[in-house]
Amino acid sequence: MPHVNTLLQCIPCFARQALDAVVEAVADPVRREVLLRRLLRDIADGDWSGTPPAMAQRLQRSIREALGDPDPYRAVKDRMNEMALNLVPTMRARIAAHPDPREAAVRVAIGGNLLDVGAKTQIAAEDLPAHLETIWTQPLRGDVEGLFREADRAHSILYLADNAGEIVFDKLLIEQLPAGKITLFVRGRPVLNDATVADAETAGLPELVPVLGNGSDAPGTILDDCSDEFRDWFARADLVIAKGQGNYETLSEVDKNLYFLFTVKCPLVSARVGEPVGSLVAKPGRRLA
Amino acid sequence: MPHVNTLLQCIPCFARQALDAVVEAVADPVRREVLLRRLLRDIADGDWSGTPPAMAQRLQRSIREALGDPDPYRAVKDRMNEMALNLVPTMRARIAAHPDPREAAVRVAIGGNLLDVGAKTQIAAEDLPAHLETIWTQPLRGDVEGLFREADRAHSILYLADNAGEIVFDKLLIEQLPAGKITLFVRGRPVLNDATVADAETAGLPELVPVLGNGSDAPGTILDDCSDEFRDWFARADLVIAKGQGNYETLSEVDKNLYFLFTVKCPLVSARVGEPVGSLVAKPGRRLA
Repeated sequence: MPHVNTLLQCIPCFARQALDAVVEAVADPVRREVLLRRLLRDIADGDWSGTPPAMAQRLQRSIREALGDPDPYRAVKDRMNEMALNLVPTMRARIAAHPDPREAAVRVAIGGNLLDVGAKTQIAAEDLPAHLETIWTQPLRGDVEGLFREADRAHSILYLADNAGEIVFDKLLIEQLPAGKITLFVRGRPVLNDATVADAETAGLPELVPVLGNGSDAPGTILDDCSDEFRDWFARADLVIAKGQGNYETLSEVDKNLYFLFTVKCPLVSARVGEPVGSLVAKPGRRLA
Repeated sequence: MPHVNTLLQCIPCFARQALDAVVEAVADPVRREVLLRRLLRDIADGDWSGTPPAMAQRLQRSIREALGDPDPYRAVKDRMNEMALNLVPTMRARIAAHPDPREAAVRVAIGGNLLDVGAKTQIAAEDLPAHLETIWTQPLRGDVEGLFREADRAHSILYLADNAGEIVFDKLLIEQLPAGKITLFVRGRPVLNDATVADAETAGLPELVPVLGNGSDAPGTILDDCSDEFRDWFARADLVIAKGQGNYETLSEVDKNLYFLFTVKCPLVSARVGEPVGSLVAKPGRRLA
């Protein structure tokens, strides 16, 4: 199993992603229908042999091209960043008051992964605080101690961000990780509501760590699609912390010291990691498994 | 609003229906992918202006043609009939012991509507008894007394069946309705797991009422697509009892003395009838509303 392959079961989910994109980005009903038909044709005729993020990458390119808008989720991302920034004081206090602030910061960073328009688990702004409350009581599957042990040992750590909004919470985890070793990578170009350099700046991350784009517009980390610069950083890093299901789907079988931090959002990934949908996961990659 | 129109929100559901059909009917992975791609193209290029059952009709025709199998759900229907027949003694006893046997029979007939492969709420054989238990406690929305009052008044009643398996439970309701007035119509040709004359025979219905096919292979009742004979019967009937969401979607705006008996299976129909998904509904049609 090289990475998580797109399965037939993913196809209706792509149709749903196409619908969500159309509803989000287009107001006119006639244009909505024209675009949705086009996207369904793209899915029908597309390459199903890659990972789900590779499929989503092509779909989102098609959407941007059809709309003539390089960043149709800009408003969504702004909303998500704002929602998350408003929650920072509360979250920071909860982390500080927790018996294990490191574990608490991991929970917050994974909880931020609920801010996702690609997966079906999209959450309305008003429901977010209630959902975030669940991160304190839900079991955290994996090895948080192992993650911090690896981070202490490492000389160079890559932190691969996932979504806007979520990246604000990533900062709270990065504050708990050893200073001076971390480089943060975001997507190279806009795709869905995934974080780019602009979102890292909104989150205030450049004050803390170097921030770079990975050169790709996939909602995951497809190494062949990333820049040479990113691949160099990746090769040289002692530890890679990868946020989100998309990074898991694209990197799960890469031979590297990896930790995956995400919420399980679909039954197929659930079967793959052996944890129920909705789980908070902080699991080492293949090399450490 | 003439009938329940297909909305953009229905499209991913059709993709899911296409996937379910492919997984049900085809074993070979390569043929599965070829057929699913073809069905997605059919959806992308199809007519979205009709009702959801009109769309499903075309999709299922495409599936049967591609498979060279006029009845790919025959095995599913046999399974569902058998499951339902095994439950008949229990259900009959529950109806007899109920303080209101007529209401109980309506609950059983609507409960049978859970046996549906078209909707997302497909239930595994082993889970069916537990699901059926819920029909006794869930609120029954609508007007059961009105239904029996209309049935007592009527001279000619059409009972429009929905699915195989379900039709076995329809018999228990038909036993409670006034004898000698009812004609049962099933689909004219196989589509999904919808009941045809063969299923009515398996349920033992011809012993009780005349059984006829409506001439159509839509998983609903599209009057223009039915036989002249059916339309004559429909025009002459004083009361039409229509089972299932598909019959509701296609007949809800027809000017006729109609009662709709179904479980609400999708958010769009839920919004339309004003009852939550999963509700048991026994509602009069437009003319009586």
